Amino acid sequence: MDAVSIINKKKAGQELTSSEIKYFFNGYLNGEIPDYQMSSLLMAICLKDMTDMEIFHLTDTFIDSGTKLDLSKIDGIKVEKHSTGGIGDKTTLVVAPVLASCGLKVAKMSGRGLGVTGGTIDKLESIPGFKTNLTLDEFIDKTNRVGFSICESSDELTPLDKKVYALRDVTGTVDSIPLIASSVMSKKIASGADKIFIDIKLGKGAFIKSHDEALRFKDIVERIGYRYKKEVRAEISDMDTPLGNSVGNSLEVLEAINVLQGKEGNNLTKLCSKIIVDILMMAKNISEEEAIKEAGEAMSSGKAYQKFLEFVKEQDGDIEQLKVSDKTIEIKSPKGGVITAIDALKIGTIANQLGAGRTKLEDEIDPTVGVYLNKLVGDEVKEGDVICTLYIGAKEEYDDPLEAFTIE
Amino acid sequence: MDAVSIINKKKAGQELTSSEIKYFFNGYLNGEIPDYQMSSLLMAICLKDMTDMEIFHLTDTFIDSGTKLDLSKIDGIKVEKHSTGGIGDKTTLVVAPVLASCGLKVAKMSGRGLGVTGGTIDKLESIPGFKTNLTLDEFIDKTNRVGFSICESSDELTPLDKKVYALRDVTGTVDSIPLIASSVMSKKIASGADKIFIDIKLGKGAFIKSHDEALRFKDIVERIGYRYKKEVRAEISDMDTPLGNSVGNSLEVLEAINVLQGKEGNNLTKLCSKIIVDILMMAKNISEEEAIKEAGEAMSSGKAYQKFLEFVKEQDGDIEQLKVSDKTIEIKSPKGGVITAIDALKIGTIANQLGAGRTKLEDEIDPTVGVYLNKLVGDEVKEGDVICTLYIGAKEEYDDPLEAFTIE
Repeated sequence: MDAVSIINKKKAGQELTSSEIKYFFNGYLNGEIPDYQMSSLLMAICLKDMTDMEIFHLTDTFIDSGTKLDLSKIDGIKVEKHSTGGIGDKTTLVVAPVLASCGLKVAKMSGRGLGVTGGTIDKLESIPGFKTNLTLDEFIDKTNRVGFSICESSDELTPLDKKVYALRDVTGTVDSIPLIASSVMSKKIASGADKIFIDIKLGKGAFIKSHDEALRFKDIVERIGYRYKKEVRAEISDMDTPLGNSVGNSLEVLEAINVLQGKEGNNLTKLCSKIIVDILMMAKNISEEEAIKEAGEAMSSGKAYQKFLEFVKEQDGDIEQLKVSDKTIEIKSPKGGVITAIDALKIGTIANQLGAGRTKLEDEIDPTVGVYLNKLVGDEVKEGDVICTLYIGAKEEYDDPLEAFTIE
Repeated sequence: MDAVSIINKKKAGQELTSSEIKYFFNGYLNGEIPDYQMSSLLMAICLKDMTDMEIFHLTDTFIDSGTKLDLSKIDGIKVEKHSTGGIGDKTTLVVAPVLASCGLKVAKMSGRGLGVTGGTIDKLESIPGFKTNLTLDEFIDKTNRVGFSICESSDELTPLDKKVYALRDVTGTVDSIPLIASSVMSKKIASGADKIFIDIKLGKGAFIKSHDEALRFKDIVERIGYRYKKEVRAEISDMDTPLGNSVGNSLEVLEAINVLQGKEGNNLTKLCSKIIVDILMMAKNISEEEAIKEAGEAMSSGKAYQKFLEFVKEQDGDIEQLKVSDKTIEIKSPKGGVITAIDALKIGTIANQLGAGRTKLEDEIDPTVGVYLNKLVGDEVKEGDVICTLYIGAKEEYDDPLEAFTIE
């Protein structure tokens, strides 16, 4: 078995065996296969795809590369929610406290953002003092006491996935259904939850651009779950448009708080409600009506928001100190009409240009910058109305925000 | 401009601009773009192809990365012959001395073999003492005096191509028309010949497996020649079957000598004659009949063989000391019939396993090993007839040679 033959086999569109996949990927982890061979294979996988069996083998290899999390010390039903990533996606910050208020346990390991905007860990780190780097004992203890905890993914969990992901990010090999599915599911299975919900983003601002791809992704992650005897539910949600009004780390935390306080009624609120209801139904085996009622009470009573504050305090964050940039620029509509589309990727790119995301792993994020959408899809605007506001830090070169808006 | 966007653009099948190609490839040469990004782009190029304009830009970038050879100190018409590589291809060792005998000048820089069997330089180095590492002055001087010289490609010629080629070899990104065409033509143009002949190998033992691909390759190299105002002629030749009887470095030198002495009449002899005639017609502007006559005289008079001996001596080689391994194994036909096919790649692979080629750049070649085909395609055999002979050195693990033969 040798690396080049395996690359050539995949390049020719053939199915790799379990032992070929293990040889190549484990060899990469232990340094026998160099970066440049792995990136070549990854690109061949992106363009030639993988069969379900190959995806299973790859998922196995990722899981076996590390230690599985033992969540048995956490009482109750452990649920996990994962999104495949989109622009303005702060649903975890809403969903986790609501679920915890409803008595479920959410022990969530999360990542930093790459590509466009910050990940959940980046968003939480915009809260001054917030500690995302927990020991396993701290993580389990906090989940038990608060009901949920979010920490940075452990290096021990699926170290191979971590190494491969870092390489994918800098080699243009991120958007591949087999690679995303095996990466996501290996982490979710290794992190020990009983029930797993996957929010599949579909659209301009997501890795997955076509409905067929999204359906395939849904199918494959549910099948991986079945293979590992985990209940997995995957649902597709729109990512043509940014989620909510805010894109940028502090801005997104503020928006999550607004949703928890019942102050928002946009597409973010709707998606959060849907995910919460789906997870409650799956985890508690209750009807949709019952789930809607439970979720509604958790939010309207203020319990979910209190849970969020408790969580922030437990992880040493000082929510009072959360800051957005003072320096803002308002972008005005050049004409009247109705906003029929807001391009998620363009908004995400501008937020990234302002410093809300990183292009390289070592890039620093500025938590205070981002884009606030004053108008959303469906809103009527008059000429001169502010349609979005840029929160600006040190970086002042960015694309024209008006290009993201379709006004008809 | 950033590397990942360029990779993603090619991955999506879009055309890269001249400045994107220059940015990426020059960045690779000067170390700004790492191996793992280059290999990812190369795989995307293999699977998504390049337009003619992209191939032109890449060729330009290769040429501009080094210094062009100035052959103006060589008198007469400078011709260059290049083969895209096949199993048992020792045509250069026949063609160059014949052309030199006919008054043309052949200043040929050549490479080491990778993938399967040795390259021209490896073959020449099987002659004890033979020096392939010449200074430019030595190279020009020897070409002027002998009529031809063959030395190892200079690092200064197209250093970018050299770096990219080494990476392609270990990342499964060798067989790509755009990459092969730009690599070959940049070297040929930089090495300063007036007239260039490209022998395009097509078949099981070649990179190019389909006639359409071969035609595209012919078209693109002739167009690159036109762009650089060089006369380029490209012809397609068969590589389903090994060329001649011998595969292995010393064995191939011996076979070339036999052809020069008029002792062989196999597919190698035919191809050499065709290439010589094509080049004479192109270089001297003469008719096919005249070319055939000139070439025939050069060989039958013994002039071409003398020229070869002169060349070997000039580069310090001692042809008397050329050795093949004493240890041989004869492979016998398991049945009677007619040989209808000999799989070039399988024979090449066995020669490689015996040590006639390298898998990694640092591998040592054993010049004395290889495969001698006692029977060729079209030959009748009886059960028990020796159909091939293995010349064996230290490596004794190899595939079953009978698998290469189809006897019907």
